Amino acid sequence: MSGNTFGKLFTVTTFGESHGQALGAIIDGCPPGIELSEEDLQKDLDRRKPGTSQYATQRREADQVRILSGVFEGKTTGTPIGLLIENTDQRSKDYGKIKDQFRPAHADYTYQQKYGIRDYRGGGRSSARETAMRVAAGAVAKKYLKETLGIQVRGYLSQLGPIKAETLDWEQVEANPFFCPDPAKVPEMEAYMKALRKEGNSIGARIQIVADGVPPGLGEPIFDRLDADIAHAMMSINAVKGVEIGAGFACVEQKGTEHRDEITPEGFLSNHAGGVLGGISSGQRIEVGIALKPTSSLHLPGRSIDRFGEPCEVITTGRHDPCVGIRATPIAEAMLALVLLDHLLRHRGQNAGVETGTPIIPASAE
Amino acid sequence: MSGNTFGKLFTVTTFGESHGQALGAIIDGCPPGIELSEEDLQKDLDRRKPGTSQYATQRREADQVRILSGVFEGKTTGTPIGLLIENTDQRSKDYGKIKDQFRPAHADYTYQQKYGIRDYRGGGRSSARETAMRVAAGAVAKKYLKETLGIQVRGYLSQLGPIKAETLDWEQVEANPFFCPDPAKVPEMEAYMKALRKEGNSIGARIQIVADGVPPGLGEPIFDRLDADIAHAMMSINAVKGVEIGAGFACVEQKGTEHRDEITPEGFLSNHAGGVLGGISSGQRIEVGIALKPTSSLHLPGRSIDRFGEPCEVITTGRHDPCVGIRATPIAEAMLALVLLDHLLRHRGQNAGVETGTPIIPASAE
Amino acid sequence: MSGNTFGKLFTVTTFGESHGQALGAIIDGCPPGIELSEEDLQKDLDRRKPGTSQYATQRREADQVRILSGVFEGKTTGTPIGLLIENTDQRSKDYGKIKDQFRPAHADYTYQQKYGIRDYRGGGRSSARETAMRVAAGAVAKKYLKETLGIQVRGYLSQLGPIKAETLDWEQVEANPFFCPDPAKVPEMEAYMKALRKEGNSIGARIQIVADGVPPGLGEPIFDRLDADIAHAMMSINAVKGVEIGAGFACVEQKGTEHRDEITPEGFLSNHAGGVLGGISSGQRIEVGIALKPTSSLHLPGRSIDRFGEPCEVITTGRHDPCVGIRATPIAEAMLALVLLDHLLRHRGQNAGVETGTPIIPASAE
Amino acid sequence: MSGNTFGKLFTVTTFGESHGQALGAIIDGCPPGIELSEEDLQKDLDRRKPGTSQYATQRREADQVRILSGVFEGKTTGTPIGLLIENTDQRSKDYGKIKDQFRPAHADYTYQQKYGIRDYRGGGRSSARETAMRVAAGAVAKKYLKETLGIQVRGYLSQLGPIKAETLDWEQVEANPFFCPDPAKVPEMEAYMKALRKEGNSIGARIQIVADGVPPGLGEPIFDRLDADIAHAMMSINAVKGVEIGAGFACVEQKGTEHRDEITPEGFLSNHAGGVLGGISSGQRIEVGIALKPTSSLHLPGRSIDRFGEPCEVITTGRHDPCVGIRATPIAEAMLALVLLDHLLRHRGQNAGVETGTPIIPASAE
Repeated sequence: MSGNTFGKLFTVTTFGESHGQALGAIIDGCPPGIELSEEDLQKDLDRRKPGTSQYATQRREADQVRILSGVFEGKTTGTPIGLLIENTDQRSKDYGKIKDQFRPAHADYTYQQKYGIRDYRGGGRSSARETAMRVAAGAVAKKYLKETLGIQVRGYLSQLGPIKAETLDWEQVEANPFFCPDPAKVPEMEAYMKALRKEGNSIGARIQIVADGVPPGLGEPIFDRLDADIAHAMMSINAVKGVEIGAGFACVEQKGTEHRDEITPEGFLSNHAGGVLGGISSGQRIEVGIALKPTSSLHLPGRSIDRFGEPCEVITTGRHDPCVGIRATPIAEAMLALVLLDHLLRHRGQNAGVETGTPIIPASAE
Repeated sequence: MSGNTFGKLFTVTTFGESHGQALGAIIDGCPPGIELSEEDLQKDLDRRKPGTSQYATQRREADQVRILSGVFEGKTTGTPIGLLIENTDQRSKDYGKIKDQFRPAHADYTYQQKYGIRDYRGGGRSSARETAMRVAAGAVAKKYLKETLGIQVRGYLSQLGPIKAETLDWEQVEANPFFCPDPAKVPEMEAYMKALRKEGNSIGARIQIVADGVPPGLGEPIFDRLDADIAHAMMSINAVKGVEIGAGFACVEQKGTEHRDEITPEGFLSNHAGGVLGGISSGQRIEVGIALKPTSSLHLPGRSIDRFGEPCEVITTGRHDPCVGIRATPIAEAMLALVLLDHLLRHRGQNAGVETGTPIIPASAE
Repeated sequence: MSGNTFGKLFTVTTFGESHGQALGAIIDGCPPGIELSEEDLQKDLDRRKPGTSQYATQRREADQVRILSGVFEGKTTGTPIGLLIENTDQRSKDYGKIKDQFRPAHADYTYQQKYGIRDYRGGGRSSARETAMRVAAGAVAKKYLKETLGIQVRGYLSQLGPIKAETLDWEQVEANPFFCPDPAKVPEMEAYMKALRKEGNSIGARIQIVADGVPPGLGEPIFDRLDADIAHAMMSINAVKGVEIGAGFACVEQKGTEHRDEITPEGFLSNHAGGVLGGISSGQRIEVGIALKPTSSLHLPGRSIDRFGEPCEVITTGRHDPCVGIRATPIAEAMLALVLLDHLLRHRGQNAGVETGTPIIPASAE
Repeated sequence: MSGNTFGKLFTVTTFGESHGQALGAIIDGCPPGIELSEEDLQKDLDRRKPGTSQYATQRREADQVRILSGVFEGKTTGTPIGLLIENTDQRSKDYGKIKDQFRPAHADYTYQQKYGIRDYRGGGRSSARETAMRVAAGAVAKKYLKETLGIQVRGYLSQLGPIKAETLDWEQVEANPFFCPDPAKVPEMEAYMKALRKEGNSIGARIQIVADGVPPGLGEPIFDRLDADIAHAMMSINAVKGVEIGAGFACVEQKGTEHRDEITPEGFLSNHAGGVLGGISSGQRIEVGIALKPTSSLHLPGRSIDRFGEPCEVITTGRHDPCVGIRATPIAEAMLALVLLDHLLRHRGQNAGVETGTPIIPASAE
């Protein structure tokens, strides 16, 4: 109810503040008998980790995750999986004026209004540091989806400010610090980021996340549509301001004959629907796009007020990603995997027949 | 779990198929002591009703709602409110080939794959007729928000295919059948729709929904952010393919200095955030945009397959809205009201202090 | 959250007041493809119906249930099943002083304190009339459990005030109006009830409910233990004041060697556990006992107060069951079936293997 | 859904196995601004701790709890409270045959059937060690209830096997290792336990838990009645086989005139209801009784089978409580506090008026 849990059958509950003692999570509802080790989680955590490149924040977060329960002799037991990352870089420092100021575009003001109290150190609970736990839990979901059903969840940066990726080469995505699938655009992005950092400013980004191999039939048709739950999951990621499925906002200007994905015995002829019809997966690729706002912590001063309603000027010191969107790729993958696994388990619980049933047609006519 | 319930503290559970005996809903968690009559619901139901104008479908759906419980001597009692609309236009007819065919861009194929059985009459449960119940429940939420807190939820059509509204005159919204806030564009829309109907084609639309008077502090900061729950709610509406909060996708190309809403003692200087910071309401106007795909039922033939995997050609006969987006305005308002009321009650349940607390600053500096 | 929904995967949400327009329910999460008709529900509704015998209340409640959705061509579709019983015996009458008085042992006082308003007609929402919907929904669950897994849920009256059933003959249970499994005690019960009715007083009862054929492995081991959910379900029935599983309160004086059910390759040697170990079904018979308080509506005056805190004397006129416990048998069966089906679906959703797995041993060594 | 979370608005999710690395919990939904320290939790943890006396198991469990998040500068912030107890006594040892054997009356067999895999070390997740986290979370709830509303939750041992407490002196409860409120019975209990330990056997117990100061109006009247949620909570405690509210099973033989609690302007004249009418608190003392089965780990051999269906003889070595019921007192208090706080917050969320409203009458006429 207080919103720190995601999912219905495969649930993830997280705790922890940016500069607190530790971050943690409990995964409840993981099927038993799955091989799982800390390395399985660490791989994705390292992809999300700041300080990996010069384009992301240089703060050192060791992010070494421990599995405290739910795994016995290398396999999940069906009982809750406790995860813990101790905060090693937890310096006690003077927060000076910032403790009473509300940084523009941050959650400082709204936390204060909601709770009447807030942990101001590094944004406390509102920091994107919390997403480390989403990535760890998402890694479990990705592994299960991949190994038991062959479902693959992947993402990439499709746009960094004004620079758009024009080709999609999956192998390139992990080969550059931007998760950019178009190697030709990487130097341009590097130059853009360098200038931005110098300027003290930041920029938005767009991420595309896809899932292949999803069987038809997943999703609940009314309120908990697969796409509705995806939208929920994506919009819950820090800095996301927009979510699209398939054609997304382009559908506003599409005619019915253009938008509808015709079907042949060989498969669908297009995928404007983004793999979801009536809230249920169609067997096609799930296509999701998200927009992330520019980093709010800037070296350029901004007008604001303090806790007492007095005007002040806020400047963020210290190192920050000029584009939080870049690091969002593994986070968004994790969230998509969590939604898919949860719906897969819900579907099984309903005892309807996607797994036994053969899809009537292949995913696409290609 | 099967997704026919929306909300946590103020919940709405719906049932009913397009051509079944009746539609119904149970509202659970409505605070006691609120004056409520069937007329309060009927007003919004009539706004949603097809056949109101020549631009919407001409099918007659009486949509007379009955309140069966939960209201005593004109006031809510805190017990569940049962709602019922009997289907009066429930002709038994020959569904011919359509009962075995999967209409492109409809949910026919995915329902068949999910359940192994489907009510093919008029789309069954996947029909937008189900949204009548959302509108009825949303009317209760809107009334409560308005009367107890002065929160006003409204929506309008901001774009019909290529035609964009350029002015926002709230009084005009209810004065034309398009919910168009720009009276200058109404004749253009009329002509466009007429041509479309003649052509047998359909078009997408964009709706904007806003809430004014929302106090700061509503929303749960991690997974159940106010904006995440709004995204969930909006994407759960039939035909929606994209959701934006505030600047939405435009933020991809915004710099940090441009996107951040600076704060003064007189209020925020802009509202790119759309009224939500860190998942919590800021006290500013909540701004939501949604994209709706073109109607899938077309008079122009489309390729598809039948239940046995054989190719077929599908043509929809009968009258259908060439733009489902138009009727989505009251539905989207209802969903936004449901989210806001639910978060308001959750907030109260947490015993944090938005109601007693005075917002530190006004909503905006205007 | 407001408590009118039961279950997680197979959910039942009810509405309706004793003297309102109608009672209704929505079953969400019923697996698709099950044959279902109104007759399937009516049978259990008739068992619960008052006025069936001279020992139960003589009010006429037609209790004709309609299935409004979720069933198509005689089979469930996986979409919500809407149920409705219109109240035919809904006389408008003068409630006189009773509308301001709090009847002792009724919920009048607590409803007034909780909601600040209450529907005083016949107890409103607090009337046991609500349980008709539980019985209807339970009939769906019982049918599914029986037909797909051979699980049989049954109950009987084991004690009526001081009179205890001493034999268990299942065929006798439906052959007398008391659900008494010991035919030798029926004349005694008849005489006792007659005297009680003459006296204007009432008496408590004890019901025993069992389930046979439950596979081992159902139940969640920590908070949502199978026995914990059964206790929840049973204590939610009007008038229930105690719940036992297996040996129940007798275990207080049992030694470990006496209580523990030893195991052999042929099965368990006893069943003090009542079929649940560590919150999970063992494959043995599920054994549940409940205590029901005497009817609160009495012809003998009782001291109370009115809404304004003034003392008053309350007498109930009209006909009432002198023992509400008798009619509780089908209600308790329904609740046990709902718990078992919900846990069965949850178990499937977790993808652990009870169905495919063969129980290591038979249920019992007999 | 997998049952490791308790509550709706104030939720507790636990993880951890008896001999794993750590136990932990996340409390979500704790109101902000409450003073909270590790000492507040430790006090109740120490009351539950084995090894405190010679009558409880001598294993050393340090049970030092750490608060990892959700508390800032000594006060709760409204964000999740992460709790952790590292297992210090986690010796690696040879589990020999026990790893394949199913101990009678334990959850070994049912875990194996449910999950197909189990952590056999000390019972794994099924060990009562998990309840340490319930006690820690319950301590937060007890503190909040006490400090903000004056609600006091307490418990005592009312029966140890054949020995019943006959007086209730609250000061004595904490003065002896049995939580026995009748000091005259303590020597008898000591002698009984000593004999039992020598014999290698165990015994059941009965615990009584009460809450004073609960305002009228808490509880949801249909499925989530206050007493139903209490029954759920109590039956979820390891070894509990029965739950009673107020008169409990004694009501079976009570007449209506005897059971009903008459009301006067000075308060209720009796409390057979146990403080709950129609599922809602009446303002009277909440009275709950529970039965706990004898410890299942015995030094006396018992027949069982192993994982392969072969017969075997099981003897438990090592030290174990001959009566698990004794330690259940603080656990049951914790569970009652969790239920009450959750319902208090739910009630606030519903915006009905218990807190502002004055109870019409005092709790009791004494």
